[in-house]
Parts: sequence; structure tokens; C-alpha cells
Amino acid sequence: LGGPRIKDVAGLSLSKLFVGSEGILGVVTEATLRLLPTPPPASTVVAVFPTVKAASEAVLDITGRLRPSMLELMDGVSVNAVEDMLRMGLDREAGALLLARSDAPHPAASAEAELIARLCRERGAETFASDDPEEGEALAGARRAALPALEKLGDLLLEDVGVPLPQFPALVAGIEGIAAEHGVTIATVAHAGDGNTHPVIVHRAADPESAARAAAAFGAIIELAISLGGTITGEHGVGRLKQPWLAAQLGPDTVALTRRIKEALDPAGILNPGAVLD
Amino acid sequence: LGGPRIKDVAGLSLSKLFVGSEGILGVVTEATLRLLPTPPPASTVVAVFPTVKAASEAVLDITGRLRPSMLELMDGVSVNAVEDMLRMGLDREAGALLLARSDAPHPAASAEAELIARLCRERGAETFASDDPEEGEALAGARRAALPALEKLGDLLLEDVGVPLPQFPALVAGIEGIAAEHGVTIATVAHAGDGNTHPVIVHRAADPESAARAAAAFGAIIELAISLGGTITGEHGVGRLKQPWLAAQLGPDTVALTRRIKEALDPAGILNPGAVLD
Repeated sequence: LGGPRIKDVAGLSLSKLFVGSEGILGVVTEATLRLLPTPPPASTVVAVFPTVKAASEAVLDITGRLRPSMLELMDGVSVNAVEDMLRMGLDREAGALLLARSDAPHPAASAEAELIARLCRERGAETFASDDPEEGEALAGARRAALPALEKLGDLLLEDVGVPLPQFPALVAGIEGIAAEHGVTIATVAHAGDGNTHPVIVHRAADPESAARAAAAFGAIIELAISLGGTITGEHGVGRLKQPWLAAQLGPDTVALTRRIKEALDPAGILNPGAVLD
Repeated sequence: LGGPRIKDVAGLSLSKLFVGSEGILGVVTEATLRLLPTPPPASTVVAVFPTVKAASEAVLDITGRLRPSMLELMDGVSVNAVEDMLRMGLDREAGALLLARSDAPHPAASAEAELIARLCRERGAETFASDDPEEGEALAGARRAALPALEKLGDLLLEDVGVPLPQFPALVAGIEGIAAEHGVTIATVAHAGDGNTHPVIVHRAADPESAARAAAAFGAIIELAISLGGTITGEHGVGRLKQPWLAAQLGPDTVALTRRIKEALDPAGILNPGAVLD
């Protein structure tokens, strides 16, 4: 399927159908990927906000003006977990941190980084910008360390919900509410520029009561995302864990269409049974 | 299908399957499109080459170094047809003309345009570059006028084949050979940066002998594209006209897969019968 043509509309878009089909239509045995030219060195901005709300509103200000090559959010829980592990001098009082990058060709990257920093300051953030690639990598290291740092706090149930960008502030606010309501610790890290979040539910898997509260919060976050017109999974896929919620997102017509295609390509039902579709 | 989430991997990629399915799977009654921010003003380069070969080799030099926002080729036949119509002072001796643009953020667009111009000069072209948007639009007007200008020469049979970029010079050289072999006039305009060409076969539809030669050249160009690892259609679709060649490009396995999906969604065979699949 597919091939090395940049444009090709001959026949159905079968490679696109198979990408992300989670093994329910067939087995991918080999993939050939197209390489893109290396992007130019990026400029990086770190913005420290008093609240998650202010940071999530800045995400809308930024994405309404430009398309950063990176726009990541870490909430206070994840900032503190990283600081516990790395001792890199992060502000433990921060409500949230945004980490943004532009890889526009020089010198536009600096100008875009400065615009991002200004939009963050207008939402009450303190900002720091750097055009130095090594310094930028060091700053991005805080985000990269988030999951290993959170693993030190307990067992993790990793979410992957996304929403249309205008609903991003409502999603992160709702996640804070769900944490309070269910009495669980939820650290939110997000690919904020894509409206894609990874709320990380910290719990003790060996404690049935803790595990039950985590599972309840997990379901509540998915239902919140659906209610905001979002998706139950932005990256990870449906698998078996999120299969119970797929129909609520897609609706019965799209589920029926999906079943018809699945049955046409897998009449014996032997391809990844139980995943995606019940 | 689909929705306003930037990232969403819940369920199969059905919107991507339906886009370009030419009505054989269903009927699209409504489409919602995402808008992107307006790109910055572009810088434009025109390069006049002594031969189509030199121009097509410059296309590889350029696309190996950067990704222009526009990279269009016009051969000598189309340049002359446009000059007949518009009298804008195009070089009638040109073997081919490349029209390129960068819309990188200021001032990177100028630098990219200068790099494109230099790569063209190294292949023997005379070049002209402009950062002025109005002047750039006037230059792009030559390309936009190509089809109306060619319509003044006779009836047109419009091709739409594409190849992997490294095969682009072989494709345009092969089209010149097919024109000579079949005794027809073929004007080639191309979205060269995508490896996608529109050879335009000029003929007299009312003259059976002329129409037969045009049809033979049409088939020969498609077979050339397939032999170069290309596609029978980069943009226009298969429809009824190119349906006889689809299996030669896709191979029997992919045709069988396509038929299974078609039959699952259209068991009565009432959706655009005769198109794409026989």
C-alpha cells in the first residue's frame, strides 16, 4: 500500500486506513517511511504561570496567532515531581509551566519565541527564552523527565484524551475537579498545542480501594473529553482499555461502518480479537 | 466522520478512507474544513532554462535542499502558448521555465528564493527573483494562464501522472519521446515539486485519426509513469477514463482488498458504478 509518490490518488487511501487500525484489519510486516529535511535550530520559551487556568488560556492565545513546533504544558504536580528528581531549580510554587518552541527559519524563530513569551506574560507568566539549542534541550529535559519522575510517586494510570483547542481550558479545569472529587492525585502533562492531554493518575495498584478510585477517575476523564466534543485517545489508541467508551464517541452509525469494514477484511474474526470493537 | 480534534486516533481513519474515494463507498453530503493561519507574503523566482532536461534536474537540486511552497514547471510549448495569449514578454526560445516560491517567515523567504535562483543558474538558467507580492502574482499569472492558452491550440486531453521525485527528469524526457513517436503536440505543465505532471495532449477531437493518436499517447504516458514506479493520477482521480490502468499500478492483491471494502459498504453496487473498479 502507498509508495514514494508525494501525490497519488489512484484507488482508495488504504495505507491511511491501515495506519492506526491497531491490528484489527491486518498485520503490518514492513513499513517504509519518508524522511523530511532536518528543521533549523529551534528557539525555546519557558513560561511559569500562577495557575493551570492562566496557562491553558495562554495556549489559546498562542495557537490563535501562530503554530509553534512544540507547545507543552506541565501542571504543578508534575513540575514538583521533576524538581524532586532533577533538582534543576524549577519553581515549586508554579501552577503550571508552558514549554514552547519555534523552528521557523532564522531569524523568524527568535521573533516567534518573543511573541509567545509576550502572550504568556500577558496571562501573568514569568518567561525565559533562549535561541541556544543546547540550553533549549536542557529546558525540554524537564518535560521529558515528567513520566519517570511521576513513577517515583506511585503506580500510574496514563490517560490520553484530547479536545478541540477552544475546549482545552475546560478540559484541564475539569481534570482538576475530577481529582478533587475522586480524592486522587492527577498530574497533567499535555501536548497543549494539539489539545492532547496526558493526565497521569497516581495510585497504589496493590490497594483495591486506591485502584478503584483511580479507575473511576479514569472513566470520568474520558466522559469529560467526550462531553467537550473531544476524543478518548489522541495518540495511544483504543486497545482493550478504552474499548467500552468508543461507541460513545463515534456514535452507532460510525461503529456500524467500522464493523462492516472489519468483517470484510477479517471474516473469521482472528485479527486482534477484543481490541477496539467488542 | 472526523472532527475538530487536531489529534484523534479513536477507531479507524474513516474520513481519510472516504476522501478521494470518488463516490464508490458513499456520498459526501457535507464537509467541514479546518483553516490554517494565512502564510506570510511569498518571495517568487522565475528561472528560464535552455532545455526541459536542465529544468527537471534543477527540480531535484531544489527539492533536495528545501521545500518551496510552489515549484511549477512549464515547457516551451506552454510558454509559447501563454505568450501568444498574454504578450507578457516570456522568452519564446525557452526550453522550460520554473516558477518557484518560498513563504518562509521574513526574511527567510528571500534567502530561500536566492538559494533556489542560484541552484537554477548552476543548471544554466537565467533567473529573476522578487519579494514583492504583486510582482510575484504577475509572474505566477503565466502558469495560471497555461490551460486557457493551450485551449486556443486545439482540443485538449489532460493527463495527471506523477512519479517519485528522482524519476521526474525521466518522466518529462519520456513524455517528449512519446510526443515525437506518436506525432502529437504535448505541452507539459507540472507541479514539479510534487513529481506531479499535467502533460496536455493537443489534438482535433473531430478528426478520428488525430483523436486516435492522442488516445495512444495518453495510454503511453500512463504506462511510462507506472514503469517509473509512479501513479496514473496524482490529483484528478481514476474515474472511468483511467480505470483500465488501475490494476497495473496497484497489483492484484490491492485490487482485491479494494473490492472487499467496496462490496462491504455497497453490496448492491449502486455507488458510482463503473468508476475506479470495473
